[in-house]
Amino acid sequence: MIDESLFDAAHMRIAPYIRHTPLLPAPSLRGDFHPNLTLKLENLQVTGSFKVRGALNNLLQVDDAQRRRGVCTASGGNHGVALAYAAWRLGCPATIYIPERASADREARIAAWGASVVRHGAAWDDAHVAAMAYAQQQGIPYLHSFEAINTIAGQGTLGLEMLTDVPDADCFIIAIGGGGLIAGVATAIKQRRPHATIIGVEPVGAPSMSTSLAAGRLQELAGINTFADTLAPRMVSEITLAQARAHVDRIVLVNDAQILQAMRWLWLEANQLVEPAGAASIAAMQSGLVDVRGFQHPVALICGGNAAAEPVFAAYQSIAKA
Amino acid sequence: MIDESLFDAAHMRIAPYIRHTPLLPAPSLRGDFHPNLTLKLENLQVTGSFKVRGALNNLLQVDDAQRRRGVCTASGGNHGVALAYAAWRLGCPATIYIPERASADREARIAAWGASVVRHGAAWDDAHVAAMAYAQQQGIPYLHSFEAINTIAGQGTLGLEMLTDVPDADCFIIAIGGGGLIAGVATAIKQRRPHATIIGVEPVGAPSMSTSLAAGRLQELAGINTFADTLAPRMVSEITLAQARAHVDRIVLVNDAQILQAMRWLWLEANQLVEPAGAASIAAMQSGLVDVRGFQHPVALICGGNAAAEPVFAAYQSIAKA
Repeated sequence: MIDESLFDAAHMRIAPYIRHTPLLPAPSLRGDFHPNLTLKLENLQVTGSFKVRGALNNLLQVDDAQRRRGVCTASGGNHGVALAYAAWRLGCPATIYIPERASADREARIAAWGASVVRHGAAWDDAHVAAMAYAQQQGIPYLHSFEAINTIAGQGTLGLEMLTDVPDADCFIIAIGGGGLIAGVATAIKQRRPHATIIGVEPVGAPSMSTSLAAGRLQELAGINTFADTLAPRMVSEITLAQARAHVDRIVLVNDAQILQAMRWLWLEANQLVEPAGAASIAAMQSGLVDVRGFQHPVALICGGNAAAEPVFAAYQSIAKA
Repeated sequence: MIDESLFDAAHMRIAPYIRHTPLLPAPSLRGDFHPNLTLKLENLQVTGSFKVRGALNNLLQVDDAQRRRGVCTASGGNHGVALAYAAWRLGCPATIYIPERASADREARIAAWGASVVRHGAAWDDAHVAAMAYAQQQGIPYLHSFEAINTIAGQGTLGLEMLTDVPDADCFIIAIGGGGLIAGVATAIKQRRPHATIIGVEPVGAPSMSTSLAAGRLQELAGINTFADTLAPRMVSEITLAQARAHVDRIVLVNDAQILQAMRWLWLEANQLVEPAGAASIAAMQSGLVDVRGFQHPVALICGGNAAAEPVFAAYQSIAKA
C-alpha cells in the first residue's frame, strides 16, 4: 500500500529542509529503564516536532503554480507550525485554521513563520471543516495533518533515520494521535526490519486508534479526556488504521498523571521540556505498561516538544534586573 | 600553567561518566545569525550543565579512603548538582551547602542524587564559608566549584570535545561565572588552535572577570545585579583570572533583558529551555555586541539548562484529566 521507495524518495526530498535530530542515551542510572534505552530527540526538529517531515513532503509535491496561490490546513498544534515553516521555506502563502482555544504559544509559533492564522470553532474538527471550505472556495490545496499518503511517507523518514542511527534497534515506542507518525514509521521500519517490535502509546482519554483496531473499522470517539492535545483527534484515518493494523504490534494506554510524571522525568534527567505527546513513550515504560527488558536496544521516540513554556519566561521576566 | 596533557588525562578519566553532548545547527533561517553558527548543547549533559566535568575530574582524583568519608562543597547551582551526581556514581557521601534562597528546583536535583543538603546564608559566599568550616571540622575534602586546577582541567574537556565536533571552528562564545569554564575551555583550545578566537560573556550586573581584568588583579564586586544566578559570584579566582588574561580575546556584557530574549529565542527556535547562563552566548550575538560575520564557523556554547521549570508542570497538572 505504501511502497518502500516512497520513504526513500521522501527522505531525499525533505533532507535539505530538516534537521537530523540527535540521540540521547537514556540516563538509566538510578536503576530504572533498560541500560541500552536510547531517546530519539525529534523534539529538536525544526518547528519542534516530526510534523515538518510530512508537511514538507506534501508541499514539495504541490506544483509551483498552486504553491504561488497558497495552501491551507487546520491544526491547533504542530502540523500548523510545520506547514507554516514549510510554506515559508518554499515562498508560499499559507492559511492555518486553529481552534478558538488553541494556545497562544502555538499561534505565535505559526504566525512567526508568516502564515495567516484564523481562529475558528471549539475543536480541531470544527476548524478542519471551515478550513476545507475555505480551501475549496479559494481553489487551493488543503494539506491534511495525517491522512495523505505523502504526509505519512514524510513522517516515515523518521523511521529510516532511527534505523540508521541505531543499527541494532529492535523495539520502537511511538505515540499515536491521528496515527500518521506511527503509520509512517512502523511501515518504513517493518519493510526493512520485519522482526522489529513497534509499540504504540495512546492517552486513556483519547484511544482513537485502539478503539478502531478493536472494532475492525474506523470509530469516532464520543469525547476526548486528556491534556495531551496533540494526541487527541476523535478519529484516525482509513490509511493510518490500515498501516497500524499491519505493522503495529501493540498499543498501550497511559493516563495524564503518568504522562506528567514522564514529562518531569525528561526534564530532570535529560533537560528536555516537552509537550505531553513527547513524553508518552517514556510514560509507557515508567508506568510498567511496556516492559522492554526482553529487547536488545529499545528506542523511545520523543516526538514533540512544543510545551506551553510561557510561565517560565514570565517568572524570569519578573526577576530580571538592570 | 595548565599543561596540555592535563586536559587529555581529564578527558580519559571522566568520559565513562558523562555524555558527549550533541550539536545543533543554529536555525539562522530568518536572516539572523551566521549561516554556519553551531550550538553546542551542553545543557543536555548529565545534571544539566558542564559542571559535572570538573566535579568528576576532581572526585576521581580523591583517594578511596577519603572518598569513603565523604566530600563537601558549597553551590546554589549546578556545581552542587554535579558533585552530587559524581559522588553518587562513585559511592561517596556528599554534603552540599546551598544559600537559603536557592531554588527548590536545584535543591530537588541535588537531593535526588542522595546528597545531604544544608541551607545556609544569604549568598553563595556565606554558604561557602560555612561549608569550608564543616569540611575542616570533618576532615573531608572541600571541592571548590571553579578554583581547583582539576576542576578547570575537567571543564576544559568541553573545549576538546568542541574541537573534535567542529573541526573548522574558529570562534567560541562562552559565558563566564567564576571563570572555571572559560579558563579550561580557552586554555585547551588555544593550546591546540592558537588562532581561534575566544569571546567571553558576563552579565552587566555581575562583571567579575572583566572588572578584575581591567584592574589587573582580583577584584571583589560590591554587589550583584542580575537574574543569571549561575553567572554571579562576586569574585573570580587567581587561576581563572590568569587563564582568561592569557587566552580570552575579549569579554562583552549583556543585560537581563537581552538574556531573556535569548532564552525565548532558544525555546522557540531550538526547543531548548535553558537557564539564563545557557542563553548568554546567544544574547551576546543577538544584542549586536558580538559580530561573528568575519568567522568561518562560530560555536555558541549553551552551557547549562537548569531553568526553574516548575511553573510549566504546575500548569499542566492543573489541566490533567482522567
